[in-house]
Amino acid sequence: MPRNKTSLRVIPLGGLGEIGKNMMVLECGDDIVVIDAGLMFPDEDMLGVDLVIPNIAYLREHKAKIRGIVITHGHEDHIGALPYLLRDLPFPVYGTRLTMGLISVKLKEHKLLSQAKLHTIQAGQEFRLGQMRITPYAVNHSIPDAVGLIIRTPIGTVVHTGDFKIDHTPVDGKPFDLHTLARAGAEGVLLLLSDSTSAEVSGYTPSEMTVVETLDRIIREAPGRVIVASFASLIARIQIVLNAAARHGRRVVVVGRSMEDNVRMALDMGYLHDPSNVLMKHSEMRETPPEKTVVMTTGSQGEPTSALVRMAKGDQRLVRIVPGDTVIVSSNPIPGNEVVVGRTIDSLFKLGARVHYSRIEQVHVRGHASQEELKLIMQLTKPRFFVPVHGDYRHLVIHGQLAESLGIPRDRIFVRTDGDILELTADSGKVVGKVEADNVYVDGLRIGDIDSPVLRDREHLANDGIVVTILTLDRNTGRVLGRPDIITRGFMEEEASEELLEQSRKVILHSLDHGLGRPAEPGYIHGRVKESLAEFFYQKTKRRPMILPVAVEI
Amino acid sequence: MPRNKTSLRVIPLGGLGEIGKNMMVLECGDDIVVIDAGLMFPDEDMLGVDLVIPNIAYLREHKAKIRGIVITHGHEDHIGALPYLLRDLPFPVYGTRLTMGLISVKLKEHKLLSQAKLHTIQAGQEFRLGQMRITPYAVNHSIPDAVGLIIRTPIGTVVHTGDFKIDHTPVDGKPFDLHTLARAGAEGVLLLLSDSTSAEVSGYTPSEMTVVETLDRIIREAPGRVIVASFASLIARIQIVLNAAARHGRRVVVVGRSMEDNVRMALDMGYLHDPSNVLMKHSEMRETPPEKTVVMTTGSQGEPTSALVRMAKGDQRLVRIVPGDTVIVSSNPIPGNEVVVGRTIDSLFKLGARVHYSRIEQVHVRGHASQEELKLIMQLTKPRFFVPVHGDYRHLVIHGQLAESLGIPRDRIFVRTDGDILELTADSGKVVGKVEADNVYVDGLRIGDIDSPVLRDREHLANDGIVVTILTLDRNTGRVLGRPDIITRGFMEEEASEELLEQSRKVILHSLDHGLGRPAEPGYIHGRVKESLAEFFYQKTKRRPMILPVAVEI
Repeated sequence: MPRNKTSLRVIPLGGLGEIGKNMMVLECGDDIVVIDAGLMFPDEDMLGVDLVIPNIAYLREHKAKIRGIVITHGHEDHIGALPYLLRDLPFPVYGTRLTMGLISVKLKEHKLLSQAKLHTIQAGQEFRLGQMRITPYAVNHSIPDAVGLIIRTPIGTVVHTGDFKIDHTPVDGKPFDLHTLARAGAEGVLLLLSDSTSAEVSGYTPSEMTVVETLDRIIREAPGRVIVASFASLIARIQIVLNAAARHGRRVVVVGRSMEDNVRMALDMGYLHDPSNVLMKHSEMRETPPEKTVVMTTGSQGEPTSALVRMAKGDQRLVRIVPGDTVIVSSNPIPGNEVVVGRTIDSLFKLGARVHYSRIEQVHVRGHASQEELKLIMQLTKPRFFVPVHGDYRHLVIHGQLAESLGIPRDRIFVRTDGDILELTADSGKVVGKVEADNVYVDGLRIGDIDSPVLRDREHLANDGIVVTILTLDRNTGRVLGRPDIITRGFMEEEASEELLEQSRKVILHSLDHGLGRPAEPGYIHGRVKESLAEFFYQKTKRRPMILPVAVEI
Repeated sequence: MPRNKTSLRVIPLGGLGEIGKNMMVLECGDDIVVIDAGLMFPDEDMLGVDLVIPNIAYLREHKAKIRGIVITHGHEDHIGALPYLLRDLPFPVYGTRLTMGLISVKLKEHKLLSQAKLHTIQAGQEFRLGQMRITPYAVNHSIPDAVGLIIRTPIGTVVHTGDFKIDHTPVDGKPFDLHTLARAGAEGVLLLLSDSTSAEVSGYTPSEMTVVETLDRIIREAPGRVIVASFASLIARIQIVLNAAARHGRRVVVVGRSMEDNVRMALDMGYLHDPSNVLMKHSEMRETPPEKTVVMTTGSQGEPTSALVRMAKGDQRLVRIVPGDTVIVSSNPIPGNEVVVGRTIDSLFKLGARVHYSRIEQVHVRGHASQEELKLIMQLTKPRFFVPVHGDYRHLVIHGQLAESLGIPRDRIFVRTDGDILELTADSGKVVGKVEADNVYVDGLRIGDIDSPVLRDREHLANDGIVVTILTLDRNTGRVLGRPDIITRGFMEEEASEELLEQSRKVILHSLDHGLGRPAEPGYIHGRVKESLAEFFYQKTKRRPMILPVAVEI
């Protein structure tokens, strides 16, 4: 890939198909700025995988050029890969105050805090990384202190929206900084990178304030205890609950480690306010009557070990659901979580709770901009080139169509996939190549040792289990000595399989009839056993267990 | 369970938590009538399971009483278990004409058609099963010839809605038979069993006609070929496409075996009409220009082997997606399918197609009644007792709340789970017990040999794979002879695991140090190897592969 020294390169990385969601690389001359370093939770076909992180081969290769990593906000899909990245590449990290607080907690857990170079930035205040001058600007999102970035490079200005919505009546009173964005637009924007998550949704995303009324009514009318489940980092929602509790003479207890940590930090840093002192400790729950109690908790996505899911299963230590309880599931299921969230709600209903959830009531609003907001950003910035980011491919396409409908010519809209290198000059843009961008899996402590063959084996095992056959062979004659042993796991119920396994012993012996009279060749024996057993099992059961022949020669 | 001879028993069975979805048992004196015999597709945690069918232990136990099985409509979740049921319990089956056609195809595949006792019934015409007189009445649903049932018993009248919506402008011109239902209501209804699938949705479900305009516009404006994917049994949708194609001078080819079969049958039986002769054979596609072609196909739920998914992957034999193609995904993703449907749409966009789907356009309407229709049914039937059926538990609860809001007293509303026996007399109702109702899994050819331990093993294997260790032991001394062999599958990449496995050999030998000097006890050796390896792997990797020690004594 020959490269133009007076050009700007833009490379999206990571995000499991959500392009540039976890990481975006901007390269200008000898300077690279990395935006975000997040992780994704695995798709259901990534069996046993805990996390998916961006492939940083390109960063490793060009580490001398990297000036820093700028984080737009403190969600996992934007900060979660930092521990894995900084371990190898200890570059300085830039982020706003709350974002830095969240990053610090994470790095501390991974014992990386002491050596990390952390720089707190502030919305509206420019800082410089190499030849790039960066102005963060305030956006609204489902976590406080989120910013977009205006990045002035020698080639032109790049606007990166981060994750955003435009909320004119935000709960924390801090509106989207339209002015700074408008000024950048007036000066001229070369490239807009804009959040496509909700590009399918027409109209405007409602303000967080619209949830206030619903939560207030439910808490006011609830006959007993109220349990509100939401995201641990959705501080605005927690503020709404604190306010409603204060209005209706209730106290609030926070249950769930991640939310407890976040509440403590948000109070300390001034992002959450408890003027009426409604927050209480776990130990105060006992003496507070149910009709005076609100439990604020995690688990609104049906996460298996979360507090709400434990409550639904009846094994949460502090809160046991009883008839008369009111539960508010204050979120929308993220795609892929619909079934587990549904099951959790079902279980809560079965325990006698009244459950309020987003399918039936306005107990949640989205955190991402809808079509009218996306158009507004395009109008304000008037970019020469447009790259939709953060979204599945279909969201990018639709976001691209929106841009076209606003008059951006189709050949200046780049709907890309991860790893694509987009090279821009002041008046031209093209994709000039691709960097390594395949998913990197984290399973347990180890990174990158799970590949497709391992996942294929896991799927095979998951579908039909495994049959291990143990043969003892005479080293000289290849004759099978004694009776083959057969062990199965995940194949079928033990009792049901007895007769089948007895028959399969005969199949093994029969398949090796021709092997007698000459030394055992392990490859031959494995092949014969595998083939004949696979056929036998498929014919009898239409299943294809993994077959693992073990031959011991003596 | 002592029973009242002059009572009516109602038992929901099957449906994976969707209560009474697949089967409903009505028992009155010495007569049992079974309503529906469907199957469910497994949840994602039922690894390797192909199908889930109702537990028919109760039917087997009381087979002398069973007078027949009445089928409300021809969807898989209402007819799919018939082959498994009739093999054991060859009772007569009752259904409308199209339903019988679909059942016949299914029984033929299973070689059960010749001995089956099939009786075609007709909406509006009463028939008798034992002391129960049954009047099927026409309902609207996403398949033609669907009925609800009015069942007159000595104890009182039961109304079962089947799956339904109320469509005043149905595509096939056959409206919901409100009159028959109203008459039953006027005479007095003891019990209403009503479809809760869409009980969360306020208002009315739109008419199938509302799709006509959208599909017509997309087909009219499409620059090239149009591909419409929907359900194979959604005959009305296929009719809409045939009509639109005729209007815009296009021909229609059907691709996908199940839809081809259904179209042939629906044409033969008069449920589908092609007056302009727009349907063409596969062989005619070549000579038809793209802008004159509509492909009607399956796969709108992202089913892995369906035609649309194959097209999205580029390996469908007849249709290769090219830029200029327009694809309409004419369905909503069923909960649990959101991610795969999204991926399919992404792939189609990547191949250059324009994709229209339900998130962004009105290309689909639901097949189930919303809240206002559910209330209408309650008003027409004025039941003494109410049992919401067909839906997850939360849907039943909400349907029950609707009933309460219409003045049905709470103690006459029974929100139940599968297997519950509800016993009714003319003026009392209570749950008197529970029959065996746990899921029965079909995997390949065999039924019921997959139980929880097998599924737990599959999950264990899926998450971290398996490590098989092979030891050769001296029969007399218990001494390990030679070097342990280790085989792994689904654990980690081969190259990455080499060093770890070398170390684990030492761990095995070390763990058996104390076993030397006395005869090998297989149980002891297994335990030691398992424990020490599990600890070693967890410490090194935080993974817990299944460990299967094999010891051969010589």
